[in-house]
Amino acid sequence: METSLFWLIPAASLLALALAGYFYRQMKQESEGTPAMARIALYVRQGAMSYLKQQYKIVTIVFIALAVLFAIMAYGFNLQNHWVPIAFLTGGFFSGLSGYLGMKTATYASARTAHAARNSLNKGLKVAFRSGAVMGLVVVGLGLFDISFWYLLLEQCIPEDALNPTAKLCIITTTMLTFGMGASTQALFARVGGGIYTKAADVGADLVGKVEAGIPEDDPRNPATIADNVGDNVGDVAGMGADLYESYCGSILATAALGAAAYIGTGDTVMQFKAVIAPMLIAAVGILLSIIGIFAVRTKEDAGMRELLRALSTGTNLSAGLIVIATFLILWLLQLENWLYISCAVVIGLVVGVIIGQSTEFYTSQSYKPTRKLAESGKTGPATVIISGIGLGMISTTIPVIAVVAGIILSYWLASGFDFTNISMGLYGIGIAAVGMLSTLGITLATDAYGPIADNAGGNAEMSGLGEEVRKRTDALDSLGNTTAATGKGFAIGSAALTGLALLASYIEEVRIGLERIGTTILELPNGLEVVIHEAGFTDFMMYYDVTLMNPKVLSGMFIGSMMAFLFCGLTMNAVGRAAAHMVEEVRRQFREIKGILEGKAEPDYARCVQISTLGAQKEMVFPSLLAIIAPIVTGLLFGVPGVIGLLIGGLSSGFILAIFMANSGGAWDNAKKYVEEGNFGGKGSEVHRATVVGDTVGDPFKDTSGPSLNILIKLMSMVAIVMAGLTVSWSLF
Amino acid sequence: METSLFWLIPAASLLALALAGYFYRQMKQESEGTPAMARIALYVRQGAMSYLKQQYKIVTIVFIALAVLFAIMAYGFNLQNHWVPIAFLTGGFFSGLSGYLGMKTATYASARTAHAARNSLNKGLKVAFRSGAVMGLVVVGLGLFDISFWYLLLEQCIPEDALNPTAKLCIITTTMLTFGMGASTQALFARVGGGIYTKAADVGADLVGKVEAGIPEDDPRNPATIADNVGDNVGDVAGMGADLYESYCGSILATAALGAAAYIGTGDTVMQFKAVIAPMLIAAVGILLSIIGIFAVRTKEDAGMRELLRALSTGTNLSAGLIVIATFLILWLLQLENWLYISCAVVIGLVVGVIIGQSTEFYTSQSYKPTRKLAESGKTGPATVIISGIGLGMISTTIPVIAVVAGIILSYWLASGFDFTNISMGLYGIGIAAVGMLSTLGITLATDAYGPIADNAGGNAEMSGLGEEVRKRTDALDSLGNTTAATGKGFAIGSAALTGLALLASYIEEVRIGLERIGTTILELPNGLEVVIHEAGFTDFMMYYDVTLMNPKVLSGMFIGSMMAFLFCGLTMNAVGRAAAHMVEEVRRQFREIKGILEGKAEPDYARCVQISTLGAQKEMVFPSLLAIIAPIVTGLLFGVPGVIGLLIGGLSSGFILAIFMANSGGAWDNAKKYVEEGNFGGKGSEVHRATVVGDTVGDPFKDTSGPSLNILIKLMSMVAIVMAGLTVSWSLF
Repeated sequence: METSLFWLIPAASLLALALAGYFYRQMKQESEGTPAMARIALYVRQGAMSYLKQQYKIVTIVFIALAVLFAIMAYGFNLQNHWVPIAFLTGGFFSGLSGYLGMKTATYASARTAHAARNSLNKGLKVAFRSGAVMGLVVVGLGLFDISFWYLLLEQCIPEDALNPTAKLCIITTTMLTFGMGASTQALFARVGGGIYTKAADVGADLVGKVEAGIPEDDPRNPATIADNVGDNVGDVAGMGADLYESYCGSILATAALGAAAYIGTGDTVMQFKAVIAPMLIAAVGILLSIIGIFAVRTKEDAGMRELLRALSTGTNLSAGLIVIATFLILWLLQLENWLYISCAVVIGLVVGVIIGQSTEFYTSQSYKPTRKLAESGKTGPATVIISGIGLGMISTTIPVIAVVAGIILSYWLASGFDFTNISMGLYGIGIAAVGMLSTLGITLATDAYGPIADNAGGNAEMSGLGEEVRKRTDALDSLGNTTAATGKGFAIGSAALTGLALLASYIEEVRIGLERIGTTILELPNGLEVVIHEAGFTDFMMYYDVTLMNPKVLSGMFIGSMMAFLFCGLTMNAVGRAAAHMVEEVRRQFREIKGILEGKAEPDYARCVQISTLGAQKEMVFPSLLAIIAPIVTGLLFGVPGVIGLLIGGLSSGFILAIFMANSGGAWDNAKKYVEEGNFGGKGSEVHRATVVGDTVGDPFKDTSGPSLNILIKLMSMVAIVMAGLTVSWSLF
Repeated sequence: METSLFWLIPAASLLALALAGYFYRQMKQESEGTPAMARIALYVRQGAMSYLKQQYKIVTIVFIALAVLFAIMAYGFNLQNHWVPIAFLTGGFFSGLSGYLGMKTATYASARTAHAARNSLNKGLKVAFRSGAVMGLVVVGLGLFDISFWYLLLEQCIPEDALNPTAKLCIITTTMLTFGMGASTQALFARVGGGIYTKAADVGADLVGKVEAGIPEDDPRNPATIADNVGDNVGDVAGMGADLYESYCGSILATAALGAAAYIGTGDTVMQFKAVIAPMLIAAVGILLSIIGIFAVRTKEDAGMRELLRALSTGTNLSAGLIVIATFLILWLLQLENWLYISCAVVIGLVVGVIIGQSTEFYTSQSYKPTRKLAESGKTGPATVIISGIGLGMISTTIPVIAVVAGIILSYWLASGFDFTNISMGLYGIGIAAVGMLSTLGITLATDAYGPIADNAGGNAEMSGLGEEVRKRTDALDSLGNTTAATGKGFAIGSAALTGLALLASYIEEVRIGLERIGTTILELPNGLEVVIHEAGFTDFMMYYDVTLMNPKVLSGMFIGSMMAFLFCGLTMNAVGRAAAHMVEEVRRQFREIKGILEGKAEPDYARCVQISTLGAQKEMVFPSLLAIIAPIVTGLLFGVPGVIGLLIGGLSSGFILAIFMANSGGAWDNAKKYVEEGNFGGKGSEVHRATVVGDTVGDPFKDTSGPSLNILIKLMSMVAIVMAGLTVSWSLF
């Protein structure tokens, strides 16, 4: 009975995909509105598609190069499992596919949302939200589909180990992590490239359009305006899709690997199997409950803003509430050891996600004091806005860190059966908390992806000259998206920290397998004891490699890891700065050279701006992304396993906190500007407004390029370390 | 013969103090110039002294409270050595005294420097540099004096341990670390309070004076201008003096403690004694060579800018070059075990310091590409200046981190005799590298303290209406100071990282003593072995407490430590923002209400501005400083020794990198503005200039408040952990 629960996993994934297809077809049947609306939507769609094509070209080259490298390591030197190159490619492919499908839907949906909003707010919401749900369902559906597919395949192909029956599942789960590395690599390129694209266009459009020429946002006279709208799609939709596909799969796969490791050497293959499928089952149940939540999002025909917000939060809260109950049920049905405490870990994960989301909202929403004070600091000019915004962001890291720390300690403590020395089960608990946090991703991502669709609908309405009334409705839809996005961000950041830890633990597991592959069968510990490698636990490996905090290799790795987070942010910040400067020059040139452009008599050369963003993003994304892949390899070659563990943990702790800081500073600047625009401290056009616009512009790369990319960086470095463990254990300089 | 070398230590310290007194009297004999010059100098001196008085009042309350707490712990619960409260108080007293004496000298020297500059550039340099040397010599003199005094006292008072003769020196050295905690606490208050003061005044003066009213820097019509000059003294002189006193003593004391620990249980008290005094001896020799360097700074009467720069660098390079040779000699004379390799560690420390200094200069000087590009980004407005400056600062962390990592690995490797498992000697090597880096502090600090004196001389010249020619000379002296300051900063930051590591290692030593104090004599290791606590090495303690990176308590501590660095910066950034806003309001009020102020007919109310900065700094400095003291205590009570070690290492790795980022971003913004003012990209008054002024203003708290305070934060948290180890080992929640 218990093992047949497995089939729930592929079933849930197929259901999600089928429903995504249904929503997509439903959306396509809506009208695109006037010819002008359709034309603008076409421009944006073409720009977005041509960007994605470019991006995939470059990414494909990187993937092929890496796959060849892995193939050499796997087939030539036997340093890796033979499935690694193929798993890596599929992970990348499906992550890219998630982004592509989400973006395709979004670019078809924007004009349709604007058209629907001509009828009523509620109709607009429905089109936008259902289109967002396509992305949510595609991500979770494809993620769980791949996981179950690979599981079934490897289950057939990897032979039993007669000496140690529990070894097989360990090899299966760690091989599947390679597919996670593919997804992470794709996601990093998508986030960095998309992030640079969208912010170069946004900053460029704002600096010349809003600040210099004094024309409003999304004005068709601004040559960068199409590029700006394209940017929302390639950054906020395609980038986010690939990102969350990676987070979702990463948390499930890391936890499965920890589940397998927890039972290694015990001979208890049944319980090991249960521990492996438990995170997948929680995710599968989460999909079903997300679908229920999505259908629960409905309001009366004449609903106002407040009802709409309530409708959205009813959906997410319903899913989150049900998953708590369902988790206890499913883990009890599974008869997992310690099922009660492990179910509690799921709840802890959810609670931590909610706390981070709430804290994000407190620090970044103009309904609360911090952002209002930030807006007020504009009275003394842009410099104090920047100082206060950075101060705010740094201070705002406190609550999320405390929440994550509490989550780590409690989920570990519960899952370990209140015994801190039971490391394997404790770490499994941390992984389960991460899975719990992301379990209802289907619906949280739907509310996230809804945001840029509503934003683009607004752009479409403005550019195609729809009336004031329609524009007001799309603005309302847009600002609704901002509120729900805060919670979504909390889950993304929190899960990155927990998944990062789970991946770190999986790295030890991979080191074990790596040692076996190069022929080590006995570990000689520094205290003179010897342990059979099959039976070695986490502590044994930690002692064997002396992974204590006084080992200079660990310390060096930590410094490098922390530095990586800063270096990576610095590179992406500068990339945005450079690409935006090109955009500014181009817009200035068009204003200067194309006569009649500001009077609305001549059409600007939109395509040229789209091209500049595309080229800038392509050129700038390669170096930082490759750095993330190279750093763990080089650190491993220099300082071995202790260095790599230091690197991962240093990158995790600094990167996590830097990510919160940047996201919250950026969010607060954005909303401080909006608060002023609502008529406070002098309103639009005042000196205070001008000062907050500077803050908003600085915040753009903070919150949409560097900050979110850090979440992926953390996990990608771990994935690379895992895949490269075979090399690291076989040779290092020190 | 070898042990009598000890007497070199107090002798060198007394020589330094005597020479400081001589230079001070020499400076006082110079003329203060015109009555106007003397009056302005008096204003500044009074403001600075009244600030310091205020500050010491508050700090005294904190010190008394902490001393009482320590006394209760020591005498009431026997959780600490009985000398702790007194040692703590003396450390604080001498650190404060260093700052006070340095500042007194500086405030007397500024008008005299300006007056001397009326004669020639060379005369101005001499007065300013010799006054800076007072501070340099006071810091190293007092530091080494205290160290030798306490050593001799404790040597007499602490009884021999019959069971373990090597225990005595361990207790002596760790008790002396408490005196380091006193120095750190004082330094943190001085840096944070002084940093808030100086930047509130600076930002306030610039925002209203330069940007709004369009009057030049240091213009007597600006009411905040005296406060600004006072700020240079309380922040850059008194703050820096206390800071470097702390760094200097901290590195020597931590290394001495590691030296004692390295020989514990061996019975070799002679070699243990040598290992303990080796860092002090290196410092003593460094004092002598610094004095030689100081006297070598001399030029011809008609020297130009280039010759002056050469004169200064001749002095520092001479000292640094000689210390390399002298170290090999003195450690050979001492017949220290492994003296050759340990001498190499000193050289490594020096080289790392130089590399960090060079990299700082490359990233922040307008002679190089990064800062010029930053200035160019002003073409597209303030937002891109901020984005590029943050990008630059983040990227600039790479070289210092790599240098420090190389320094850690090499000094550890050499000192351990090429054996990574020889942890005690390896860590001792890291400490020695830190001591080497700071060994010539006498002269590097002289060139550092010279900067604000020259800056104030310029302010004095401007305000008292001396001619264009004199102002030009003081400007030249000032810019000379900026160049030498870069190297000084490199040493301060680099030594903080290495000293932080050495302190972390000393913490383990203190844990051992703490365990003994609560009656533990045998450690039961997790592998079932038992170790007598006297004979337990670093690895044993690490195993006993499970300080591996998979322990959730370690991980939690690390997250909290990283967060502390960000939270602390955020708090200090916001404090500057708030205090500056008050200053802006006051200056605006005076411009509005005091008639004729802008025409130079009425004198502004300088005292009011001085008061605002004083009150702002006092109010704002308490919370962040107390936080640094409380965090290690609370973490210890929650998560025990593993949590504290995680906290320290997380704070160290994030704090070190954040400090470089902030210092370099700030420095680059400052010089980008200067580069524009030199006539590039439109020069003064252009849009680009306006944009870079925003960058400069944001950079002020970056480079002079938050950034440098982080160096102290790192070490203070370690010191607190060390002093509180008795409490932590006796009780924790998890």
